[in-house]
Amino acid sequence: MRLFIPLLLATTALATSVHADALRDTAAEIFKALPSTIPAIKDNPVTPAKIELGKALFFDPRLSASGVFSCYSCHNLTAGGDDNMETSVGHGWQKGPRNAPTALNAVLNEAQFWDGRADDLKAQAKGPVQAGVEMANTPEQVVITLGSMPAYVDWFAAAFPDETDPISFDNMARAIEAFEATLITPAPFDAWLNGDDAALSADAKAGLQLFMDKGCSSCHSGINVGGHGYYPFGLVEKPGAEVLPPGDKGRFKVTETASDEYVFRAAPLRNIGVTAPYFHSGKVWELPVAVEIMAESQLGEALKPEETTQIVAFLHSLTGTLPPVTLPVLPPETDATPRPTSIIK
Amino acid sequence: MRLFIPLLLATTALATSVHADALRDTAAEIFKALPSTIPAIKDNPVTPAKIELGKALFFDPRLSASGVFSCYSCHNLTAGGDDNMETSVGHGWQKGPRNAPTALNAVLNEAQFWDGRADDLKAQAKGPVQAGVEMANTPEQVVITLGSMPAYVDWFAAAFPDETDPISFDNMARAIEAFEATLITPAPFDAWLNGDDAALSADAKAGLQLFMDKGCSSCHSGINVGGHGYYPFGLVEKPGAEVLPPGDKGRFKVTETASDEYVFRAAPLRNIGVTAPYFHSGKVWELPVAVEIMAESQLGEALKPEETTQIVAFLHSLTGTLPPVTLPVLPPETDATPRPTSIIK
Repeated sequence: MRLFIPLLLATTALATSVHADALRDTAAEIFKALPSTIPAIKDNPVTPAKIELGKALFFDPRLSASGVFSCYSCHNLTAGGDDNMETSVGHGWQKGPRNAPTALNAVLNEAQFWDGRADDLKAQAKGPVQAGVEMANTPEQVVITLGSMPAYVDWFAAAFPDETDPISFDNMARAIEAFEATLITPAPFDAWLNGDDAALSADAKAGLQLFMDKGCSSCHSGINVGGHGYYPFGLVEKPGAEVLPPGDKGRFKVTETASDEYVFRAAPLRNIGVTAPYFHSGKVWELPVAVEIMAESQLGEALKPEETTQIVAFLHSLTGTLPPVTLPVLPPETDATPRPTSIIK
Repeated sequence: MRLFIPLLLATTALATSVHADALRDTAAEIFKALPSTIPAIKDNPVTPAKIELGKALFFDPRLSASGVFSCYSCHNLTAGGDDNMETSVGHGWQKGPRNAPTALNAVLNEAQFWDGRADDLKAQAKGPVQAGVEMANTPEQVVITLGSMPAYVDWFAAAFPDETDPISFDNMARAIEAFEATLITPAPFDAWLNGDDAALSADAKAGLQLFMDKGCSSCHSGINVGGHGYYPFGLVEKPGAEVLPPGDKGRFKVTETASDEYVFRAAPLRNIGVTAPYFHSGKVWELPVAVEIMAESQLGEALKPEETTQIVAFLHSLTGTLPPVTLPVLPPETDATPRPTSIIK
């Protein structure tokens, strides 16, 4: 007996391992584990000085006209990199048109915003700063604000050492992009992809298998389990008007092509378990409900309750850990710093 | 010569040292260096579990009805512990009645708020959460919110291990107070009080001398250079109606005693150099102007420009360094968590 039991155990372990390997082999063709180093960014070398400047800017509410909102306000790094709201509240208590996406791992998306209208985070970062319903500021005012504080003058010079005029709206965006490149959140799914069989529960593994078999991974694939490619919301069956408001035609506004009506970028699903509510409309708070809506609208499939549970278990395995973020120390205003204004233009 | 020079230098050094010691001896009777350990709080033992819970609560915007505001919003730890605004913007874009005071070192104030209406931070913390123009929430709703998230249930149990019902509005406030007790910012002035002659510039030392000689330190004394005692704003001469709006009678509202009209708690001056704008009205942005207004209104004294410069140099020596604050990781909402509402009641 003594000899036999270990052998039997070894056989079982081997069988599990073979099975796990088959699932992993399939998954490895579709997804990719997060890197252990900060991703390189096209046209924007990431340096420690640029990361530090970008962190200060990310947390600085003086980028907004009112002094109330920073990038952090809607991309809250304590809470999944978003703001847990249907759509964000901005300048003058106005509501934004779409749900705030997470900033976590966003650097790895093919394009930014729900409709992919920004190619990268340095283009994206300029949007909310200027949007009247968000930070309601202007590039000119931002440059005056930053240039009024000697510490920022030094930090921009250190981050952009070869430039004669380092403080610019573009460089603000580049620095923020560099900081955001550090917001990478390795998750149990990455550990599993990297070979740790115990990192996923049996339910999560079954959910992963379903996620691939049912066709979810046709759109939600790659390193961010989505975040690239454009697809109609309601490929098979349009969801209700609350979830898909008729007035928001998605990518059509970007391309003005009829076939892009109600087309959106496939949502990246990392940290989806901590970034409710869901969809561009932010109308759905429960992850199982969101999964069922997607299965019906995109795949024409009514999931069994157990299937939903397993897919949700897989999605929770995408909840990762952010490297510790220490708050920056922002420079104080000077007499030359524009004063905040809460006036709504 | 070789023998003589060192002796002469020694004599000079001794003379400086004697002078510095005289100034320090006087200062030591009036002020006090910050402690190197977390201050004890009456009726609220500070434990690591309570600090961690308090930090999560301090950063959690779900303490507000809208999900927009946390304690951090107006007590921004990247920017001096306040919000750099005349008065804060709160729920529904409403403006608060008075300038947000810094949370840094606030645990060492004798009482909280501009009018001292809260005895301590655990009483203070309950105010903004419920104020209609700030976070617009209710104690009942806060308890439901916190109790809906298993991580908070665990954290409250760990922070209040002897209690059968640890999640309460009072315990929320106690935990926040415990976290705020860690927000202690040793400054050059502390280093100098502790014996480091080089920690203060000549201007700052001259300013300190003036600060004591002119009588500023009659009210702004103790460990927080203020933060205790109540005095009429305009003891000698009332400042203009913009700086001292007639409608805000200060401590009178607390005590309903005629002699308390326009009486306020002496402002604690630590980090005053990074917490503009000034006064309860937040109407003055320049520190030298604030110093001159105080000299005129409280002491009947018109300062010479050089005197103002020196006093301001001393005040800047009160700008301290916060221990590094790492962002907490907040638990995600559950189906039982009340949803944010931006509706203005």
